[in-house]
Amino acid sequence: MIDVQTLAIDPSELQARIDRLGNIGSHPDGGLYRALYDDGWVAGMALVRSWLDELGMATRVDAVGNLWGRIEGSAGGDAVVTGSHIDTVRQGGKYDGALGIHVGIAAVRALVAAHGTPKRPLEVLVICEEEGSRFSCNFWGARAIVGRIEPGEHERAVDADGVTIGEAMRARGFDPAHIPEARRDDVAAFVEAHIEQGAILEREGYPIGIVSTITGSRWLRVRVSGRQDHAGTTPMDLRRDPVAGAAHMIERVTAAATRMGRPAVATVGRIAANPGSVNVVPGWCEFTIDARHAEPEPRRALLAEIDAILADVARERGLELEAETMADHDPVPMHEEIRGILEEVVQGMGLRYLVMPSGAGHDSEILAPRFPTAMLFVPSRDGRSHTPAEYTPVEQIVPGVRALAGALHRLAY
Amino acid sequence: MIDVQTLAIDPSELQARIDRLGNIGSHPDGGLYRALYDDGWVAGMALVRSWLDELGMATRVDAVGNLWGRIEGSAGGDAVVTGSHIDTVRQGGKYDGALGIHVGIAAVRALVAAHGTPKRPLEVLVICEEEGSRFSCNFWGARAIVGRIEPGEHERAVDADGVTIGEAMRARGFDPAHIPEARRDDVAAFVEAHIEQGAILEREGYPIGIVSTITGSRWLRVRVSGRQDHAGTTPMDLRRDPVAGAAHMIERVTAAATRMGRPAVATVGRIAANPGSVNVVPGWCEFTIDARHAEPEPRRALLAEIDAILADVARERGLELEAETMADHDPVPMHEEIRGILEEVVQGMGLRYLVMPSGAGHDSEILAPRFPTAMLFVPSRDGRSHTPAEYTPVEQIVPGVRALAGALHRLAY
Repeated sequence: MIDVQTLAIDPSELQARIDRLGNIGSHPDGGLYRALYDDGWVAGMALVRSWLDELGMATRVDAVGNLWGRIEGSAGGDAVVTGSHIDTVRQGGKYDGALGIHVGIAAVRALVAAHGTPKRPLEVLVICEEEGSRFSCNFWGARAIVGRIEPGEHERAVDADGVTIGEAMRARGFDPAHIPEARRDDVAAFVEAHIEQGAILEREGYPIGIVSTITGSRWLRVRVSGRQDHAGTTPMDLRRDPVAGAAHMIERVTAAATRMGRPAVATVGRIAANPGSVNVVPGWCEFTIDARHAEPEPRRALLAEIDAILADVARERGLELEAETMADHDPVPMHEEIRGILEEVVQGMGLRYLVMPSGAGHDSEILAPRFPTAMLFVPSRDGRSHTPAEYTPVEQIVPGVRALAGALHRLAY
Repeated sequence: MIDVQTLAIDPSELQARIDRLGNIGSHPDGGLYRALYDDGWVAGMALVRSWLDELGMATRVDAVGNLWGRIEGSAGGDAVVTGSHIDTVRQGGKYDGALGIHVGIAAVRALVAAHGTPKRPLEVLVICEEEGSRFSCNFWGARAIVGRIEPGEHERAVDADGVTIGEAMRARGFDPAHIPEARRDDVAAFVEAHIEQGAILEREGYPIGIVSTITGSRWLRVRVSGRQDHAGTTPMDLRRDPVAGAAHMIERVTAAATRMGRPAVATVGRIAANPGSVNVVPGWCEFTIDARHAEPEPRRALLAEIDAILADVARERGLELEAETMADHDPVPMHEEIRGILEEVVQGMGLRYLVMPSGAGHDSEILAPRFPTAMLFVPSRDGRSHTPAEYTPVEQIVPGVRALAGALHRLAY
């Protein structure tokens, strides 16, 4: 095992890259917005390609727009790949996704400088889309790589202006008929570096997080229907008030997740009552529940408890309940062996690290079922994410570069 | 006291009038919409004026559009007035407001037929606007009568298209400069018949309700602010979740009103979370609370308890609380003596009646502080109100006509 502390990593160059990419694709209301196939995205991808070219990598863009930089290995075989995505949410920050590219480039650069040509092919992957912030789908790039884009999906997924993802592809010179060509089968390992997007590492003083599992989330759309009534003339005891019922449900659901403890979470992000007049008892109230847990068994228990709370409160209050599952993903465990390599490298660096589930989704959850995959986190200041306030000081990024470089060395050299 | 059971009241004529006015001013999505100064309102007012003309009343339209029909009294003096409004909410029904006109016309017609000219002037008043469903104000007609329209208000109150109430007046030939001329000082009594708009009379088997007090309502706009966070990466124990806090508040506020018992009510009619994404812990949640009670002391206690709940939950959960009072009206008691006359008349009819607060607002609450005022209710089928489903069978309206006629006879003959 190499001593990663001796690798030459230039923090100011790293910071300069973060800032330069972080100036491309700004949102009119502040922060970044690089959405798949838009101008900012094109400019960002071109900039990163120029960096991969400078590294001496052979670069190519696949059929959907993923960018690959490759150094051939002396022994050939399947590739060892690191990377993340450069698309952003609306009003996003400079670190979510992009950090994995910056860290990957710095790690490969340092490895090649110190150790020359790898045995296995070593690649940096810039995934074209993860966030789902333009089209009505997400993980577009990663799903193309594992062959999980459905036939005809490019005609169904649309943006807010009704443009299909297929039309947007053609406008950038991609032919949707070639989507299947983006599939890769020759990947030996994928390692993704990312900001934590939460505050646990920072609060608990860990410089590195190593991901055990990417959490499984279920999204419900819940509609509670009662009876629309006059807010002045209907006594409380004669009401079937869907907002009072929804409030009772939300209070109990969030309390249940809190009681279950980390990493159980339950979030009501959206809520509305109809007709929405101050002086009318609403006829119905609709809200969403995003519930997550990283382990299959407690996840099932959490979801079952939520379902029971919704049914109980509806029955107690004489309300009708409709719950539609918008999404339901099992947790995705990271690859034991690569995770172990990351742990050894970080131990070798003499750093504390936290083995933790990822509460957020990542490209790695799409790639993991097909390729040995692992992730490492660096802290997010104040846990901020999906906001221009995202920040990780460069001195907290450098240990991530060393950890990634150590793992890539073990896998590719 | 006359025997009101002998008065000639034609239920089929009453029903025909209800249906005829109920066909004027339809809303494209169903039900009625007669909004102040619009075409349906003009047509409805013209129809009612023709009915008042047929009754032999002298009719006039005042400076804001209230329609008055008058029979001079043999002894002169201040007028005894009955009436209500003919404007409706969007997708309203045929009974709210209009019923008071139909009942008033039928009562005056029966009284004149049986007893001839009154001693005091007897008037039917068709108030031009009560509901506040077009312009950003309400009680326009009643406030004009008591001189409570503020100088310049006609330039400030606008509809959804930005048309001021003054512009809308001019388009119908009314000059805002003349608004003060609508004021009346020569009213001896006002009695308004109305549908209950609730289900208490029907459920408890009372044919008539006599209003004790018009409830005092307070409208709050509450904003609970926490911290916007990622729904996957922020553990429950690190959150300041404004939706969970709002749910807790709403659950406790509605429970408090229920525990206090009739006629305390608390309604959350509108609620929203920002930014409103399924997978984002919202930064803030906004909702309204309409709280009402008919008696000043328990009303103060209810409002104080609501304020305490909001403050307690915000403090417990580390949330910021802003509560803006949108409206705050004290309860308005009805006139003891006229209320007593109504009770005697209904007792004389051998009917059970319920002395009850009005949970809804009415023109009578504007007129009551200046003129001796009282109200009677007939049942609303299934308590429906502000919907095309509003309904009261004509055989349940006729006792209301007789009760009103008896009271008008006592007051004017």
